[in-house]
Amino acid sequence: MPLGQRPGDKSESRYCGVETEFHDDMPHLLTESLSGGFDFIVAPLIDPSYRPSCMTNGGSGSSVLPVAASDLILSPSQWSSHVVGKISSWIDLDSDDEKVRLDSEITLKQEIAWASHLSLQACILPPPRRASCGNYAKCVNQILQSTNNMQLWLRVPLQKSEPMDDGSANANSDFSGGSMFDSWEWWNSFRLLCEHHSQLCVVLDILSSLPSNNSVGRWFGEPVRAAVIYTNSFLTNARGYPCLSKRHQKLITEFFNHSVQIVISGSLLHDISGESIKALPANDDDSHLEVIPPRHALRPYLDYVAYLYQRMDPLPEQERFELGYRDFLQSPLQPLMDNLEAQTYETFEKDIVKYSQYQRAVCKALIDRVPDENASTKITVLMVVGAGRGPLVRASLQETGHISKTAFDSVYHVVRLVILPSLEFSEYTTRFGMHCVLHSISFYYNSNYILVSFIVKHARKLALLKTALYLIIDLCRPAKLNASTSFCNCYAVFCFAAEETARKLKVYAVEKNPNAVITLHSLVKLEGWEDIVTIISSDMRCWNAPEKADILVSELLGSFGDNELSPECLDGAQRFLKADGISIPSSYTSFIQPVTATKLYNDVKSHKDLAHFETAYVVKLHRVARLAPCQPVFTFTHPEYSKKSNERYKKLCFEIPSDSGSAVVHGFAGYFDATLYKDVHLGIEPSTATPNMFSWFPIFFPLRTPLFVATGSPLEVHFWRCSSTSKVWYEWCVTSPTTSPVHNSNGRSYWVGL
Amino acid sequence: MPLGQRPGDKSESRYCGVETEFHDDMPHLLTESLSGGFDFIVAPLIDPSYRPSCMTNGGSGSSVLPVAASDLILSPSQWSSHVVGKISSWIDLDSDDEKVRLDSEITLKQEIAWASHLSLQACILPPPRRASCGNYAKCVNQILQSTNNMQLWLRVPLQKSEPMDDGSANANSDFSGGSMFDSWEWWNSFRLLCEHHSQLCVVLDILSSLPSNNSVGRWFGEPVRAAVIYTNSFLTNARGYPCLSKRHQKLITEFFNHSVQIVISGSLLHDISGESIKALPANDDDSHLEVIPPRHALRPYLDYVAYLYQRMDPLPEQERFELGYRDFLQSPLQPLMDNLEAQTYETFEKDIVKYSQYQRAVCKALIDRVPDENASTKITVLMVVGAGRGPLVRASLQETGHISKTAFDSVYHVVRLVILPSLEFSEYTTRFGMHCVLHSISFYYNSNYILVSFIVKHARKLALLKTALYLIIDLCRPAKLNASTSFCNCYAVFCFAAEETARKLKVYAVEKNPNAVITLHSLVKLEGWEDIVTIISSDMRCWNAPEKADILVSELLGSFGDNELSPECLDGAQRFLKADGISIPSSYTSFIQPVTATKLYNDVKSHKDLAHFETAYVVKLHRVARLAPCQPVFTFTHPEYSKKSNERYKKLCFEIPSDSGSAVVHGFAGYFDATLYKDVHLGIEPSTATPNMFSWFPIFFPLRTPLFVATGSPLEVHFWRCSSTSKVWYEWCVTSPTTSPVHNSNGRSYWVGL
Repeated sequence: MPLGQRPGDKSESRYCGVETEFHDDMPHLLTESLSGGFDFIVAPLIDPSYRPSCMTNGGSGSSVLPVAASDLILSPSQWSSHVVGKISSWIDLDSDDEKVRLDSEITLKQEIAWASHLSLQACILPPPRRASCGNYAKCVNQILQSTNNMQLWLRVPLQKSEPMDDGSANANSDFSGGSMFDSWEWWNSFRLLCEHHSQLCVVLDILSSLPSNNSVGRWFGEPVRAAVIYTNSFLTNARGYPCLSKRHQKLITEFFNHSVQIVISGSLLHDISGESIKALPANDDDSHLEVIPPRHALRPYLDYVAYLYQRMDPLPEQERFELGYRDFLQSPLQPLMDNLEAQTYETFEKDIVKYSQYQRAVCKALIDRVPDENASTKITVLMVVGAGRGPLVRASLQETGHISKTAFDSVYHVVRLVILPSLEFSEYTTRFGMHCVLHSISFYYNSNYILVSFIVKHARKLALLKTALYLIIDLCRPAKLNASTSFCNCYAVFCFAAEETARKLKVYAVEKNPNAVITLHSLVKLEGWEDIVTIISSDMRCWNAPEKADILVSELLGSFGDNELSPECLDGAQRFLKADGISIPSSYTSFIQPVTATKLYNDVKSHKDLAHFETAYVVKLHRVARLAPCQPVFTFTHPEYSKKSNERYKKLCFEIPSDSGSAVVHGFAGYFDATLYKDVHLGIEPSTATPNMFSWFPIFFPLRTPLFVATGSPLEVHFWRCSSTSKVWYEWCVTSPTTSPVHNSNGRSYWVGL
Repeated sequence: MPLGQRPGDKSESRYCGVETEFHDDMPHLLTESLSGGFDFIVAPLIDPSYRPSCMTNGGSGSSVLPVAASDLILSPSQWSSHVVGKISSWIDLDSDDEKVRLDSEITLKQEIAWASHLSLQACILPPPRRASCGNYAKCVNQILQSTNNMQLWLRVPLQKSEPMDDGSANANSDFSGGSMFDSWEWWNSFRLLCEHHSQLCVVLDILSSLPSNNSVGRWFGEPVRAAVIYTNSFLTNARGYPCLSKRHQKLITEFFNHSVQIVISGSLLHDISGESIKALPANDDDSHLEVIPPRHALRPYLDYVAYLYQRMDPLPEQERFELGYRDFLQSPLQPLMDNLEAQTYETFEKDIVKYSQYQRAVCKALIDRVPDENASTKITVLMVVGAGRGPLVRASLQETGHISKTAFDSVYHVVRLVILPSLEFSEYTTRFGMHCVLHSISFYYNSNYILVSFIVKHARKLALLKTALYLIIDLCRPAKLNASTSFCNCYAVFCFAAEETARKLKVYAVEKNPNAVITLHSLVKLEGWEDIVTIISSDMRCWNAPEKADILVSELLGSFGDNELSPECLDGAQRFLKADGISIPSSYTSFIQPVTATKLYNDVKSHKDLAHFETAYVVKLHRVARLAPCQPVFTFTHPEYSKKSNERYKKLCFEIPSDSGSAVVHGFAGYFDATLYKDVHLGIEPSTATPNMFSWFPIFFPLRTPLFVATGSPLEVHFWRCSSTSKVWYEWCVTSPTTSPVHNSNGRSYWVGL
C-alpha cells in the first residue's frame, strides 16, 4: 500500500518496506507485513546458522540449503514484487581466518544463486566489515558480471566521523574504522573495484545521529535505492508517538524526492497509550490470518513515514513535465549546421519568462537610447539576428506599443504572483478562470514560495491588471492560506513593462532557416507589421545589411553560454551594428562546478567508446551531488572591437568543503548567465538562475575516469575553447589531485560546426 | 660517425649529437659538426628573437618566418638524418602574461609545422617553466594528434631534490620548483595530459650532480631518447682531459644499454695542453670547409664518450639472440589446449641449464630414496608426465648411468666455466674447438663474470673433463686476461653429477601430444631404451597407470609458475604417485613487483580494447623500471593431499623506496621460483634467478590506468587465482593509493583452458 498519493509522483519512494528476521514460514511473514501496510519485506533467505564447511559433518547429513521457503511457497510475482533478499550478515570475505573466508565466499554465491532462481529484484549485501574489502568486492564483481537483472544493494551505514565532533555523535557506531571513519569511502572503494557496475546499488542505514549536510549531500549522486530507519532512531512526541528529528525529516523528504525507498527495521519501542497494540500472536493456524489481520507492531513508524510523505508539496507542473528528462543525456543542438524543426521552435517559444526578460531589456535600451522628447521622431533600427519564427520580433514590438492590428487581445501580458504557502492549483485555476479571461498559466514552486505566471487577455491597462491580480490574491487567500499569511506577505512581480515606450522602430528579422522564414512571413502579414518589419532570409555572418543597426537582438545562447557559437555569429553580425550600437545580450559567462553523478557516468560508459566520454551533454540534473560552488569560465561581451580571438583558456581551482569528506568527481556541470542589458539578466547558474524558465537544462562535461578527491585536496581544472576554420570545440582536463588526459583534443570527439 | 663497433649492438646509442646555437648558415654548421665526428646536430630552426606579435610592427614588414635555412639548402635526407630541431626555448605557454602565452602558442605551432615540412625525425621541446604546465601539454597534445611521424622530445633536467640533501647538490639548478623538486613529476604530468602518446619522448639534461640511483632508475621505464651532457659537467683528469665521475660513467653506460643517444652541449672548457685545438675560424668561404676540416672544438668530449662506449663489454650471445624479443609482448602458451609445435620443442630443449638442474634433482632424489646397498636390486619407477619429445627422459636416464647404446659420445656433459674479465668469444671458441671435440657452447656474461656452458663429447670421465677445463682456462689466460687474474680467481662450476648414481630405473613417459609421441618412440628406439622406457600417449589427468610411481618428473611451469596449470595437471597425476613418492618439482612460487613500463603500456593500449589490458603477457623486460623488490604471490606444493583448492588469494603491500620519489606503475612483472628437489631450484625471480637459462621470460600483468604512487604511499595489490570447470584465470586490482577496477573478472579477457 503506497504511502500516499502525490500528484505527479510515480517514483518507487511511495513504497515502504520492513526488515524481518529469518523465518521459515515465509508466507506468514509476508502476509503479516503486507496486511500491516508495508509494500515489501527485506528478509534473510537462508538460515543464518548455516555454514558450508559444517554441512558434511552436520547432523542432518543433507546437502539441501536451509532456505526460508521453497520457490513454490510463494508465487513468482510475490517473490519478485514483495521480497528483497537479505544475504547472511555473518559473512566476512576478507577474514584473515581462511575457513571463515571460504565459507563466506560459498555462502554468498549460494544465496545469490538462490535469489536469482527466485527472480528477486534485489538482494541486500551486508556492510563490509573492514575498510579493506578487496575480496568481498571481487566476489561481488564476479557475480555482477554473470547475474541476470537482479540488483545487488550494498548496505552501508550513513556515518562519518567529523573532525570537529564532540565525540558523542558516533557513539552508537558498530564500526571500528579508526579515528576518521567515512562510510562513503567504503562504498566508493567497493564500487570502483566493481567498475561502477550499474546493478550495484546502495542501501543506507540511517542512524540516530547524522553526519554534516555536505557529507550527506554526496549520496545524492550515488545509486541509493533504499534507506533503513531503525525504530531506535525515532524520538517520542508529546503524545507518545514516534517521530523524527528535523534533520531526519528533511533527509527522508530528500530521499522521497530521489526515489529512495524507506525500510523500517527494529522492534516496537513506542508504547502508544490509548491504543491497543496487539502483540503478534504465535499463530499456528494460518487460515485465520487473512480474516482478522492483527495490527502490525511497526505500524506507528510506518504511519509517521507516510505522514512525512503525504505532507510534501505536490510536484510543480514544470517539474512533472520535466520528469522524463531527469538525468537523461541529450546531445547539444547544432543550430548553425542543422535547421531546427518546428517542434523545437514550438517548445522554446513557450518560455514566457525568457521573452519577458528580453522585452524588459529592449525596453530599457530604447529608453536609454531615445530621449522622451525624440520618441515620436527618431526611428530606431533594431535587428533580430536568428529571428526563428519571430518571438523576439514580437517581444521587441510589444515593448514599443506596436500593437498588432488583428486585435486588442493579441497582447499578452505576463504577471508573476508569488504566494508563500502552498495551495491546490487545480482549484486555483478554476476559480481564476471564472473571473478573468485567462490565456495560459504556468506554475513554479520551491519550498519557499510559489510563482504563478499567467497571460491575461483584455488587460492592456496596468490598472486592469492590478485589479485582476488583487482579485487572484483575494481568491487564493481563503483557499489554503493560513491566518498568518497576510496580504502584505504576498509579493507580486510584474515582468512586463509598466509603460509602453512608444519609440518608433524599424525591425529587420534575419534568419538563415528558410523554413522558419516562411512562418515569419505569415506572422508579419497576420499581425500587420509589413511596414515595420523586413524579413531577411540569410545567415547573419554573410548578410550585407543596407543600413546599420542601433540595437542587435539575438538569442543564440546554449546551456554553456557560448556553446552554440553565439560569439562567432555576433562577431559576424556586428559589422552592421552602429559604433555606439547595443547588443542584447551584451555579455554572457559560462560556469562550471564538479559533480558526483554515477547515473550519468554509467550512461556515458555504456557506449563503450572514447568519443562519448569527450562529449558535453545537455541534461536535467537530478541524481547529482554538487560538490562545490560554481566558478565562472569564459566571458564574451558584445560588441567586441578588440580583434580578440574567441579562443579561451581558463584554469580553475575548486575547494570541496572539508566537512563533505572525500568525494568522487564524474564530471562538471555547466551553466551560463547572460546580461541582456544593464541589470536585466537571464541565466541558469544555480545561485542566480532566472526562475521558471525552462529553455535550458545544464550541460555536463564528463571525465573519462572518475576522479577521487581526498578531503582537503584542491581540484585543479583546465578548460579551453578552441576553434578552427570549420568548427569550435572545448577541451578539458584535471591536473590536481591527479592528472587526467586532455579530453577531446582537437575536437576529435565533440565539436560544433561553424 | 658511430662511437664505435660493439658486436651485436645495432641500437641508436652508437650515434652522438651536438647541440648548437641558432645559425643562419645551416650547411656550415652541419658540415663542421659531421666532420668533427658528430652524427647529428640539435639546432634551433627559427631566430630566437622572433615574436609573432611583433611581426606586423617589425622593421621588415615581412611575414616570412626567420628560419635558419630554407628547405632547399640541405637535402631531404640531410635534414631528416642529421638535424634534430630545437624549439625556441623562450616560449612559455603557461605564462600569466597573455601576450607571452599567445606568442608562445603561435611560435610552437609554426616551428613544429616547419620541422614537419622538413621531415625532421624529431624536435626537442624546451623544459616546462613551472610545475603547472597544463596549457603547454594541451598544445603539444593537439600537435601530437595531428602530426605525422615526427617525434617530440620534451627536455627535462635529470634532477630531484633529496630530503636528506646537504643543500649543495642542487645548487646549479635553474628551476625554482619549491623545496621538493622532482623533474620526473613534471614529465609524468605532461605525458598523462598527452595520454602517453607514443611520439612524445624525453630528453634528459644531465647536470653535474645526479639524484639517487633509485630516483634515476625510474627513467629506464620511460621513453628517454637522448641525454644532453654539458661540458661543464665534465671533470678534468690528470692530463687535463675531460672525464666524468664514476656515477656519470655508470649512467652513460646504462643509457648506451637502453638505446639513449648522447648529445654534447656547451663550449670548450678543457684546454688540452700539448694538442693544438684550433679555434673555429670565421670562415666566409664555404668551399674550403671540406678540404681542411678544422678539429671540432668539442672533440675531446666526444672522444671521451666514445671511449666509454668502446670499453663496454660485448653483448653476450644470449642477449644478442634475445634482442628482438626485448619489450615485445607475447601471449602465454596454452599447452593444455594447444599442442606445441616442433619448433617450440626444439627451442626449449636447447636450455642445457634447465635440464642439468633437473638432472641434479633426479640424482639427489634417487640417492635419497635408494640406499647404495640396494642400488643394484631396487627398481625405481619414475614417471615423466608431459614428456614432450623426451628431454626429461634423457636427463633422468643419464643421471642413473643408463648410457644409450648408440655411442659413448651421445652423453652430453655440461660444464660451466666462470672467468672474470672479458675475452673475445669468437677467438675463444675457435681455440677451444681445436683442442677438444665441442658439441655446443653458449655464453652468458654480466659485468662481473662470464659464464661459459659447453657440452663436451668423449668426456665421460670427470678426470678428462677436468683436464679439458684446465685446458680452456689455460687457453683463455693469455688471450685477454690481465696479469691480476690468476688461475685461482677462475671459478669452475660443474653442473652435471660427478658420480653416476647407478640406480635401476623403470621409466614411463606420459605425453598427450600425439606428434611428440612419435618423436619419443624414435628416440627410445634410437637410444636402445626399449626395456626401460614405456611411452604412454595420454593426458596425465585421465591415464590409468598400471603401477604407482616413486618419482614424478614434470616440466609444466610457466613464467608465473602455475600459469600453465601445473597444479591442476599434477593434482591429476598424483593419483599414481606412491604415498611417499616424490614430485620434481616439489613446489613453486610466483612473484610480482610493480614496474614502470611506458613502452609496454603503449603497446597494450594500441589495441584499443579492454581485453588486452586484462591479459598477462610473456615479455623480455628491458625498458622497464623495477620499482620495488619482488614479493611472493602463490605457492603450490606437490604432492598435495590436503584437498585444498587451487584457487588462491593474496594481498600484497609494496613500499617504493622513499629516495625513488613518486612513480607511475603500468603493471606488474611476474616471475617464478621452483624447488625441484631439496636445494635444487630453478627460477627467474631476479634476485635468485638461475643464470644462463633462457626457457622463460617474465610475465607482465598490465593495469588499465597508469597508477600514480606518491612518495611514501604504500601500494596495495590483490591477486587471485580462480578456476571453473573449464578454465583457470587470474584477477588483479589495486586498492591503495587509489582503487582500480578488478581486472579480468570471471576471466572474461584472459584465461587458460583446462
